[in-house]
Amino acid sequence: MRVVCLDLEGVLVPEIWINVAEKSGIEELRLTTRDVSDYDVLMKGRLKILEEHKLTLSDIQAVIGTMEPLEGAYEFLTSLREKTQVFILSDTFTQFASPLMEKLGWPTLLCNYLIVDPHTNMIIDYKLRQRDGKRKAVEALQSLNYKVFAGGDSYNDLSMIKKADAGALFRAPEGILKEEPHLPFTTTYDEFRGVIEEFLKQ
Amino acid sequence: MRVVCLDLEGVLVPEIWINVAEKSGIEELRLTTRDVSDYDVLMKGRLKILEEHKLTLSDIQAVIGTMEPLEGAYEFLTSLREKTQVFILSDTFTQFASPLMEKLGWPTLLCNYLIVDPHTNMIIDYKLRQRDGKRKAVEALQSLNYKVFAGGDSYNDLSMIKKADAGALFRAPEGILKEEPHLPFTTTYDEFRGVIEEFLKQ
Repeated sequence: MRVVCLDLEGVLVPEIWINVAEKSGIEELRLTTRDVSDYDVLMKGRLKILEEHKLTLSDIQAVIGTMEPLEGAYEFLTSLREKTQVFILSDTFTQFASPLMEKLGWPTLLCNYLIVDPHTNMIIDYKLRQRDGKRKAVEALQSLNYKVFAGGDSYNDLSMIKKADAGALFRAPEGILKEEPHLPFTTTYDEFRGVIEEFLKQ
Repeated sequence: MRVVCLDLEGVLVPEIWINVAEKSGIEELRLTTRDVSDYDVLMKGRLKILEEHKLTLSDIQAVIGTMEPLEGAYEFLTSLREKTQVFILSDTFTQFASPLMEKLGWPTLLCNYLIVDPHTNMIIDYKLRQRDGKRKAVEALQSLNYKVFAGGDSYNDLSMIKKADAGALFRAPEGILKEEPHLPFTTTYDEFRGVIEEFLKQ
């Protein structure tokens, strides 16, 4: 029995922080793990910026609410969900992802969590569910006797793709393609679906 | 972070085999694990009956295609999926469940699998993903640092409910209620949702 794990940002929806930076006009929020390698330093920096600008969770959610899934993502995802079980494995936060999950038809999402002050609605901290959560989710599915396909676009997807029984990159940046030349890479949903359907048929 | 596991038949949709028995007019298909305690004996018997009546997978799927989720089940499930991740854990088979999953908005389903002859479309065998698969799915989610709520109506739900961090029975038969008097039991979706929302808030 075979299932599929997909990354969220860059694969099904745009990069959330970059959109928040653009739509809020706060340039410093554009920084990603490509600019700041330590995730905790990056996230603490982001929360400090939000605090300085007095941006609440609701403010951020309002920005995210104006975002749309990538063109063709809904149809791609729905066609997969009609054939198999799909798990979205992401490093984002449930409270950020929610408006986009609704637009994708509420697929199952395993991700992280923001800690919010109930009085001020300010984001005060974040909680990683566990270290290397994407890889561990693949292992958990394998412990249930599933063969797992994993697809993503970023460095933080490589450990799940390598742990999975099969996998592919989707619209990955040049650097990753050079470092991982043996991984199948795809740039359109039709190509990506083709690789996944090949796996499901085996 | 908290998630919910739900049984399928009796909780969100009617009992599939009983409906197939009624709609096909084959009385012997009404037998369940309450009548035949050995699941393998029961399933092999069912497959023999299907063979005798020359019922193909497509025939059975056509019958299942006429079934509807229980009244209120779609709204109940959707309201939960807007708040948390929901996993449906079932002993049914992917090929049987599919028409009903579509009507429920393609929630994530972990279940078993039928082996079908590609030429005759007859069901020739079945494959359990693993022994005690519902309990093991709860354990897998706990290994990902989730607190898990589990709800069901049958004897085969008790091990997942007991393994989960919290749980409840929904429309369970008298026998189970007597044997498990300490488990919360609910009979309407409003009550069931109330117990689950209490768990999600903690």
